[in-house]
Formats: sequence, C-alpha cells, structure tokens
Amino acid sequence: MTPPAALRGFRIQKISAGHAVELNDQLAVEAPLELRISAHGAPKNISITMRTPGHDPDWAYGFLFSEGIIRRAEDVSRIDSDGTHIDVTLAEGLTPNFTPLERNSYTSSSCGACGKSSLAGLRVEFPNEKVSMLVRVPAALIPELPVRLRERQVGFEQTGGMHASALFDLEGKLLLLREDVGRHNALDKVIGAALRVGLLPLNRHVLLLSGRISFELVQKAALAGIQLVVAVGAPSSLAVEMAEEHNVTLIGFLRGENFNIYCGQERILRN
Amino acid sequence: MTPPAALRGFRIQKISAGHAVELNDQLAVEAPLELRISAHGAPKNISITMRTPGHDPDWAYGFLFSEGIIRRAEDVSRIDSDGTHIDVTLAEGLTPNFTPLERNSYTSSSCGACGKSSLAGLRVEFPNEKVSMLVRVPAALIPELPVRLRERQVGFEQTGGMHASALFDLEGKLLLLREDVGRHNALDKVIGAALRVGLLPLNRHVLLLSGRISFELVQKAALAGIQLVVAVGAPSSLAVEMAEEHNVTLIGFLRGENFNIYCGQERILRN
Repeated sequence: MTPPAALRGFRIQKISAGHAVELNDQLAVEAPLELRISAHGAPKNISITMRTPGHDPDWAYGFLFSEGIIRRAEDVSRIDSDGTHIDVTLAEGLTPNFTPLERNSYTSSSCGACGKSSLAGLRVEFPNEKVSMLVRVPAALIPELPVRLRERQVGFEQTGGMHASALFDLEGKLLLLREDVGRHNALDKVIGAALRVGLLPLNRHVLLLSGRISFELVQKAALAGIQLVVAVGAPSSLAVEMAEEHNVTLIGFLRGENFNIYCGQERILRN
Repeated sequence: MTPPAALRGFRIQKISAGHAVELNDQLAVEAPLELRISAHGAPKNISITMRTPGHDPDWAYGFLFSEGIIRRAEDVSRIDSDGTHIDVTLAEGLTPNFTPLERNSYTSSSCGACGKSSLAGLRVEFPNEKVSMLVRVPAALIPELPVRLRERQVGFEQTGGMHASALFDLEGKLLLLREDVGRHNALDKVIGAALRVGLLPLNRHVLLLSGRISFELVQKAALAGIQLVVAVGAPSSLAVEMAEEHNVTLIGFLRGENFNIYCGQERILRN
C-alpha cells in the first residue's frame, strides 16, 4: 500500500483585491495514524494521532521516547507502517511502563499532552541527571536560524499550513528538519530521527520551532537533553516555568533581528 | 479562591539588532482545568484541559455541546468553577451518552480531538437536519473582519500568544470574542457563550479564527450551525473535506485584501 501523501491538491478561488482567480493549491494533509505496540506477545492499541503523513517511524520513536517507553534506538526491534497503522515491536527483555499510555485514547495533530489521566500525569519523569555542561551561542546566530530553515522548509513554502521543527548544531548548521500540521508531531519526528541515528542526548544542539511554545514542547526538548529552544512564536507562561525548572534557555518572538530571551540568558553571548 | 489570571508577567530580555533591554512582558497563561460532570449522583471526572483561564463556564458549555452531551443551555442545571476544577450538574431527566467522553484522559490546549478511542470516534454524530437556508455575504466584508477583531482582541495585543475565535453577524458586527492559548478552546468558549444566550443554531453568522484550521474546528463550527468559517491561517486537507461534507463555506489565508475560498464559494457575493 502506498503511504498517504503529505500534500493534497485542491481547486480553490483566490480573491485578490476583489478579483477572483481559480487555481490549484496544495494543502497539508491531516490524517490519522494508529500506534500499536507489541511487547511480550499480542499488540496493544496505544493511540490515534492526527498527523501529516511522512517520517512516521521517526514520529513513533520520538513519541515513545517522550513518553518514557523507550530510551535508546535499540529498544525497538522492529517497526512497520502502512500509512494508517504503525506497529512497533519492543526489544526482548524490555519491560516498559505502559501506565501513562494505557488510556485507550488518541493524540491530536496539535496536541502533545493527550490521555494523561490526572493533573500529576501532565509532567513526565526525568530519568537523566541534571544538565552540567553549559553550551553557549553568539546572539548573532539566532536570527540566522529561521533563514536557514526556510531554505529547506519545502512543505511550509507550499502550504503555509505546516509547523516545522529543526535541529541545528552550535555553529548553526541545520542537521534535521521535520514538518507536520501538528507542532508536537514535528518535534516528535525530529527527536525520533535524532534518537535513531544516535544523536541523543542533544546537549550540543539548538532547537528551532516555527510556532508558539507550549509547556509540552519544552518538556519534550528538555527530555531529549536540549538546552536551547528558539521559537518564532510566543511561549505560554507554563512553557517558561518548565524551561526555568529544567534549565533550558527559551527564546521566542523571533522577528528578523529581534527576539526575546525568556530565561537562561547566560547561554547567549553578546559582544 | 481567586481564579487564575489569563496573563502572567515575566521579566525578559528583548534583543533588538544586537542590543538588549530588560523589560516586563505579559504571557498567556496555560493551566489545567479538570471537568467533572454530575448526572444522577456522584460526579464523574471527564477530562483535563490545558487552557487559558477565563470564561471557563463558556468553555464547558461549548465543549459539552460539541461532544454531544448537551444540546441546549437548559441541559445544565448548575455550574461551579474554582479555576482548577469545573463542576457541571446536568438537568434532571437528562440521560446523556457518556461513551465518547468516558476515557479518563485529558484534552490539551491545542487539541480538540483527544480521547476518542477509535478512528470512527474522530467524527461526531450530527443530530441536526441539513442546512437549508443559504446565507450570503459580500466579498468586501471578509477583509474587514480581522480589522474589527483586532480592535477588540486585548489578549493577543498583549501576548502575541493567544488564539482568537470571533462570531460576527452577516453585517460584520462582532457579537462574541474569546481568546485562549488553544484554538479549540477559544472556539468552544465562543460556541458555549452563544449557547448560553440562546443564539444557536448560528445560521446567520460568520466565524473568524485567528490561526490554522483543523478538521475538528470545522466540525465544531458545523455542529453549531455555522455556514461561514473564515481563518487567517491555512486549512488542512481534512478541514476542507469536512467543510465540503457539511456544506460549510471555508475561507483561509486571509492577508489584507486577499483570501482563498476553499469551498462553498456560492455564499460569497462579488460585484
């Protein structure tokens, strides 16, 4: 079966100052993906996520990492996807805690927090030790990041409707880019891709997000070891509190040469 | 107990072309709200939603309407909120179907679709008859709507991080405006407020959304009887398909005088 496409063409009317032209437009596809996990036997239905098709295995690795089900790429022994379902077989001997996932629910395209059953469940356990090494980048690098992203951001150029997550090294080289109608999915895909190639913890990297910053996005980044999160949009109050708690530098409202540092300014070098 | 505020002040560093100033900034609050419903006895925990505090009863009415639990304002006999929990007591004699809600999960600030347990559960039942009356608005009215929204959109002006949902009449008069870090919450608040004042079905109204359009937003609008949905952002493919299915006019990518009509162009009058 051919996996569903990430873009779909529609015939639309474009109105410009009162004049109408009919033309073909590309829209971001929003389609469900059902995640099933096999560990010691029968597969278990975990969640249904509205996502943009593409890089589905990356998404599954990143989602399961953020949920604490896997810690390393080797924790997955097999992964199969037909575009509507994705089946993950965990490595033998792994005894994951499914409690946070056992909710028979689904996660939406714009939601990284579904299905937790209590207020306490909003926050995930942080198994890693605290950040010790302090990375620093020059302030002049920050406005460069969206420029370098746009050079590679194919989906957004075409649809205007996709969120992007991009991972850079400390010199500003773009290492990984993933796009999705859901900003949490785009980040799960980047973290999953990084996990698969052995990049974690991402403690010598900068994360760029195209949209606004929820607490869940900061939590996912911190879990992956990221110390520098830069976003085009504004953070929520809880996002800043989460960044302070986990010693993450949070930058938002990046417009041209201007941006706001919400916390962790010691990592940004100004001359 | 004082309900939590919708905005919180943070001390930030603003970098403008290399120069830093320290100043106070207002961010949109993202905080959990636990929904409990009482029907014939003990209260039942329904969901936890990350939302911006404010108009919480409107949100509860709108959410329960969209989920098919209530149909009229009178279906709620009592509603109490302390800012962290909201308790809804249903009218006596009401025997709602809790199946779609019985998921012991929570809905996120940017998610209107959490907790459905199967792919089929993504779509809700449409109890109403099909749209019969066809409303029409002049094309010149569409670019006016965001201008009128901005005059009233206090939260966005302050934070840059809130989504807005606004209901207009067919002459472009702004009737209701709600803001939230979550776009689905903002729409639930508008629909709930409209339900409470007896405006439903909203078949002589235009809905304006500040962000991108997911299929869930179109579904919620259609359920409330809205025939005209206008958004600043782009729709997903499934949003357009949902609008076509429910005979909703969908307009997006509204920038100044320019916008795209994705379907239902017969409702837009051009001269």
